[in-house]
Amino acid sequence: MDTTNLLFYLAIAVGVIGVIFVTIAAKWVLKQDRGTDRMKEIQDEIQKGAKAYLRRQYTSVGIFVIVVAIILGATYGLKSASAFVVGAFLSLLSGYLGMIIGTGANAQTAAGSSKSLNTGLRVAFFSGTVMGFSVVSLGILGLSLIFWWLLGSGHAHVASAARLIPAFGFGASSVALFARVGGGIFTKSADVGADLVGKVEAGIPEDDPRNPAVIADNVGDNVGDIAGMGADLYESYVGSIIAPLTIAYIAFYKDPNLQVHGLNAMMLPFAVAITGIIMSLIATTFVHVKGDRTSMGVLLMALRKGVWGAALLTAIALFFVVRYVMGPGFDGLYYAILSGLVAGVIIGYSTEYYTSQDYSPTKEVSASAGTGGATVVIRGMAVGMLSTVIPILTVGAAIIVAYAFSKASAPHASVIGGVNLVGIYGVALAGIGMLATLGITLATDAYGPVADNAGGIATMAELDPKVRERTDALDSLGNTTAATGKGFAIGSAALTALGLTISVILVMHDIIGKDFQHMLSVADPMMIVGMFIGGMLPFLFCSFTLNAVGKAANAMVEEVRRQWREIKGLREGNAKADSGKCVEIATLSAQKQMIAPALIAVISPLLVGFLLGPTALLGLLTGSIVSGFLLAVMMANAGGTWDNAKKYIEEGNFGGKGSDSHKAAVIGDTVGDPFKDTSGPSLNILIKLMAVVSLVFASLIAKYYIHW
Amino acid sequence: MDTTNLLFYLAIAVGVIGVIFVTIAAKWVLKQDRGTDRMKEIQDEIQKGAKAYLRRQYTSVGIFVIVVAIILGATYGLKSASAFVVGAFLSLLSGYLGMIIGTGANAQTAAGSSKSLNTGLRVAFFSGTVMGFSVVSLGILGLSLIFWWLLGSGHAHVASAARLIPAFGFGASSVALFARVGGGIFTKSADVGADLVGKVEAGIPEDDPRNPAVIADNVGDNVGDIAGMGADLYESYVGSIIAPLTIAYIAFYKDPNLQVHGLNAMMLPFAVAITGIIMSLIATTFVHVKGDRTSMGVLLMALRKGVWGAALLTAIALFFVVRYVMGPGFDGLYYAILSGLVAGVIIGYSTEYYTSQDYSPTKEVSASAGTGGATVVIRGMAVGMLSTVIPILTVGAAIIVAYAFSKASAPHASVIGGVNLVGIYGVALAGIGMLATLGITLATDAYGPVADNAGGIATMAELDPKVRERTDALDSLGNTTAATGKGFAIGSAALTALGLTISVILVMHDIIGKDFQHMLSVADPMMIVGMFIGGMLPFLFCSFTLNAVGKAANAMVEEVRRQWREIKGLREGNAKADSGKCVEIATLSAQKQMIAPALIAVISPLLVGFLLGPTALLGLLTGSIVSGFLLAVMMANAGGTWDNAKKYIEEGNFGGKGSDSHKAAVIGDTVGDPFKDTSGPSLNILIKLMAVVSLVFASLIAKYYIHW
Repeated sequence: MDTTNLLFYLAIAVGVIGVIFVTIAAKWVLKQDRGTDRMKEIQDEIQKGAKAYLRRQYTSVGIFVIVVAIILGATYGLKSASAFVVGAFLSLLSGYLGMIIGTGANAQTAAGSSKSLNTGLRVAFFSGTVMGFSVVSLGILGLSLIFWWLLGSGHAHVASAARLIPAFGFGASSVALFARVGGGIFTKSADVGADLVGKVEAGIPEDDPRNPAVIADNVGDNVGDIAGMGADLYESYVGSIIAPLTIAYIAFYKDPNLQVHGLNAMMLPFAVAITGIIMSLIATTFVHVKGDRTSMGVLLMALRKGVWGAALLTAIALFFVVRYVMGPGFDGLYYAILSGLVAGVIIGYSTEYYTSQDYSPTKEVSASAGTGGATVVIRGMAVGMLSTVIPILTVGAAIIVAYAFSKASAPHASVIGGVNLVGIYGVALAGIGMLATLGITLATDAYGPVADNAGGIATMAELDPKVRERTDALDSLGNTTAATGKGFAIGSAALTALGLTISVILVMHDIIGKDFQHMLSVADPMMIVGMFIGGMLPFLFCSFTLNAVGKAANAMVEEVRRQWREIKGLREGNAKADSGKCVEIATLSAQKQMIAPALIAVISPLLVGFLLGPTALLGLLTGSIVSGFLLAVMMANAGGTWDNAKKYIEEGNFGGKGSDSHKAAVIGDTVGDPFKDTSGPSLNILIKLMAVVSLVFASLIAKYYIHW
Repeated sequence: MDTTNLLFYLAIAVGVIGVIFVTIAAKWVLKQDRGTDRMKEIQDEIQKGAKAYLRRQYTSVGIFVIVVAIILGATYGLKSASAFVVGAFLSLLSGYLGMIIGTGANAQTAAGSSKSLNTGLRVAFFSGTVMGFSVVSLGILGLSLIFWWLLGSGHAHVASAARLIPAFGFGASSVALFARVGGGIFTKSADVGADLVGKVEAGIPEDDPRNPAVIADNVGDNVGDIAGMGADLYESYVGSIIAPLTIAYIAFYKDPNLQVHGLNAMMLPFAVAITGIIMSLIATTFVHVKGDRTSMGVLLMALRKGVWGAALLTAIALFFVVRYVMGPGFDGLYYAILSGLVAGVIIGYSTEYYTSQDYSPTKEVSASAGTGGATVVIRGMAVGMLSTVIPILTVGAAIIVAYAFSKASAPHASVIGGVNLVGIYGVALAGIGMLATLGITLATDAYGPVADNAGGIATMAELDPKVRERTDALDSLGNTTAATGKGFAIGSAALTALGLTISVILVMHDIIGKDFQHMLSVADPMMIVGMFIGGMLPFLFCSFTLNAVGKAANAMVEEVRRQWREIKGLREGNAKADSGKCVEIATLSAQKQMIAPALIAVISPLLVGFLLGPTALLGLLTGSIVSGFLLAVMMANAGGTWDNAKKYIEEGNFGGKGSDSHKAAVIGDTVGDPFKDTSGPSLNILIKLMAVVSLVFASLIAKYYIHW
């Protein structure tokens, strides 16, 4: 059997094993003790709300998918449309599964925490694992099957397979954008709305059942932080495989000297993903805590053992995998992948440094609360901005290393615009290198919202305060791992978008020919204009999403005030709130407000590409990657540091809970909510979606350009 | 007499006329009634503080200038060092004159306002005029004399003059950066510190003499908003002439077919500046108000008549000027200049729309204050981000128009990397087009801080509240014109930096040769890495400046608290505050904190250029222009909308002064202070300084690259 076929079989096998593992883990989680009747009732309510939201969202997204599928079908034929639909469907499925397990594990986590912290951690972590491995298994399974199908029997249709596979990524990306933006608006409008009217206005504690927005807030954790993130990272994962695949087609397959390695080079990203999944599965067994020590350090170490173990195992195994797939002489590609893996780890730690209350940046933000909310905001912004330095330099170093080593492997590869194509292939490989262990990093990330929900249930069901203390420990840990996860998501998004942009260049070069090399110049006014527009789009996008949260939160505040006015006895805790109405309001706002930003993302590159030409389009893509990356890091980390600066004060520093400092810190935290959970993470998808849309339509834009 | 010489004579004549006009206007302002003894006393105190600050700043800057001059002298010879020193010196002088007139007109404006609003406006506007015309007269005078000197007798040394003139811009830019950053930190630490401890903590009104930081706050208006802005725009003005000049050398002078137009093309930017100055001088006579109506609309219209009149006259005259200087066949260049002029006006209006309380964006920010400080911050950020769209599209359109028209004038001009050099020359001309009427736009801008100061003096000297009302009307108007001015400053900074970057490309191309065309590709990993680093630098820079303000403001708060504790009777108004100590603290903080960001700006491009090569350096410059432009617009406009949203509430909307909404709006305003007056405007200089440093060292970097 040749290597290509072997890798297909392995990809499918690993995908199936992943699905089986996920099913077993999910069954285990769901059959855990759900606790008291009140807990079950709350869980059911949250699940009902989440399902209602997703049903509505999937209807809107469904219409979009159908319209685009028809356009693709008419333009590129049925295969392209099918790849798009499958990509979109699997993205929806990833999000849905995440939501099911998230809403199905929160009561269990609360009940587990009432036994011991360890039990709580295990339940929560396993639910996160389900999310993580659903994403990677569905990703590798769907992508490899579609690619195999496109290749046809005897791998006869390499050219058309390479051309059509981006449609799969397009499907995944567009669904991800809707999920991230819609979910992000939902969760933060409910969160901010509940806080503003509850904590700030009425002075009642978080998750108090007298606040009708609390259920919506809990629903939001599931549809935004779990389902939205699942769709996001599914899309990153798929995109980071597609980018090197399409580059490999031109760099290897179309180069007579390297054609013999062509199919294997196209399959190498799959091989990296397969290795990462297997090693991550093995590493999940490293995660457990002995006894019942609540120390954050112990918990964090338990999770880290899993993440580190997976990274280390993957790093070692990949050396042999690259040797096996590419044969000797291509070790440079291994170092390219490794540079991505290492960069991911560095970015993760840098994120942690800037956002965790264990380090000085966040402590200084806490300290600045002594002079009011404004100084908290200023200092937090400064931290967010400063935190862009290390990720940028790290990604930059990874690019240089990946390019240099890969180029050294094939110094005589084709050159376009002075750029060695195998070198650029290496840069794209660094992207999948960064995401290789996504299964387990996402698991440590996704369990946070489950713990958050469990805490909500513990408070609402009036369990022993000790339980809430334990779920808070889990949640707080979740914030740290989530920050790390966000760092990964952003870093990989930049590399993936970059890889896709390079693919756009190669596809256009194929059509326009040698002249195209002169169209890549940074001195070209069209390039500059494109870069300006591309740089601006993330700002426009964030403006929309920030405003959307603001508007939706206001609607939520009005509704809560109305219920308190009209439902007698509610504020005293003697009547039941109409939580369903709050969920409905958040749902409708989110649906309404997600349309405009999503359309901007899809339409802008097409508009610029067709009206201003290929040069401006490439400017748009690079400009959006640079500014999107920077804004995303800044917003995510500013949000993280505000959140934890508030927590640090709540732990009794600088006056503690209820002090003026605390009130000031709450302002920072509230500003940070949409920064870190709506606008920031959506930017990852924005830059990838624009790149993949451009890739799908690259040949059309190039032909249109020649024609005129 | 040939056109070149005529233009030199005209430039010098206009410069001298400008200086005479400035002297007369200054004398007139200074001899106006200074009001009561208490007013004189306060004025003297402010002036003493401002001088003390500038003395200290000029000492630090002096050391920097000497060191760099020695380096330049050793590297490029005495002429380069001289050009640098003169550029730096004139920048210092512009700032100093602005400060002298600013601190010399505040009491006069207060005294004038106690007679009538019209008298107040005239005094304040004339003081602004002094500032505006000092900048442009010194700019044109210094630059033309140095360029003439470099050209030598019979214009024998065109090549070396073109190579050495950027050093003049380098001198202007580096001083401007110190002035903007140092002044910005001083003014905002005093302002924020005084507000935090006075308005927020002690509940005493603004400018209350019991607050020891009030004098420092008033000093800050002069050293930051006036001297800092003067140095900033002086530098923009000079840079926007140098950029097309250096491009013209290669596009025209070195092209055998166009050499005949070479010197004239190099002089055309001077001609544009001369025309703009003359027309602005004429238009200042349009600014006056009949009777004593306090309506904002009437005042604004008076200023607008001046600005519009100048723009219109300049637009008409330039058509003939371009014809005269370049001869027939180059009308395309006129349209390029015009596109810059028009773009400036559009950006100005867009800025006004997003920051004035007359329009919905700011009103919505005010309305959001009902749900607290956090929503104010979120909505203001959203407005700031949204406000980037029109400036970006406008500058983009100006670039396309300028390029297309100019290229059409000389379709057979030299081409580098697919780019027509005369076309690119047109893009650089658009930059000076935007700044042509700087004399008067800066006048309407600089008078704001004078009115602000006058208000402070009116309150401290306990004048009739009617006087404060009038100065407040002037000040409020000043905020609007200042916003417009900031829009101009940012837009022109982007075009100037772009022009300088193109010059870098041309200089390097001259040395490296044809191969260099392959080094401009956006697909090159080094280009991408450079863009990442360049995009990140504005974030790093803002982080530094935001933190600097935060730290300095805290030091100020501590000092005020100390004085209240230790000086008996001060809080009751029976003892005199030690204002000098507050000025000293702000001075020391500003000096200490301005070093790091300024060095980043100078060193980064050199480090990247020598270590990573020319491609990465060009990536750095373009990346910094894109992200610096966007951040600068966002921060300036978010700051503007927060400021005016607060004012709108103070006018009695949404609860008015003292309401919870007002408190929430004050948080937004305080966040906005360093955004709009420290970090945002400094970015303009950052991107130009990095470009001009690169241009000065471009040949060295290129040679170093070849050598390795």
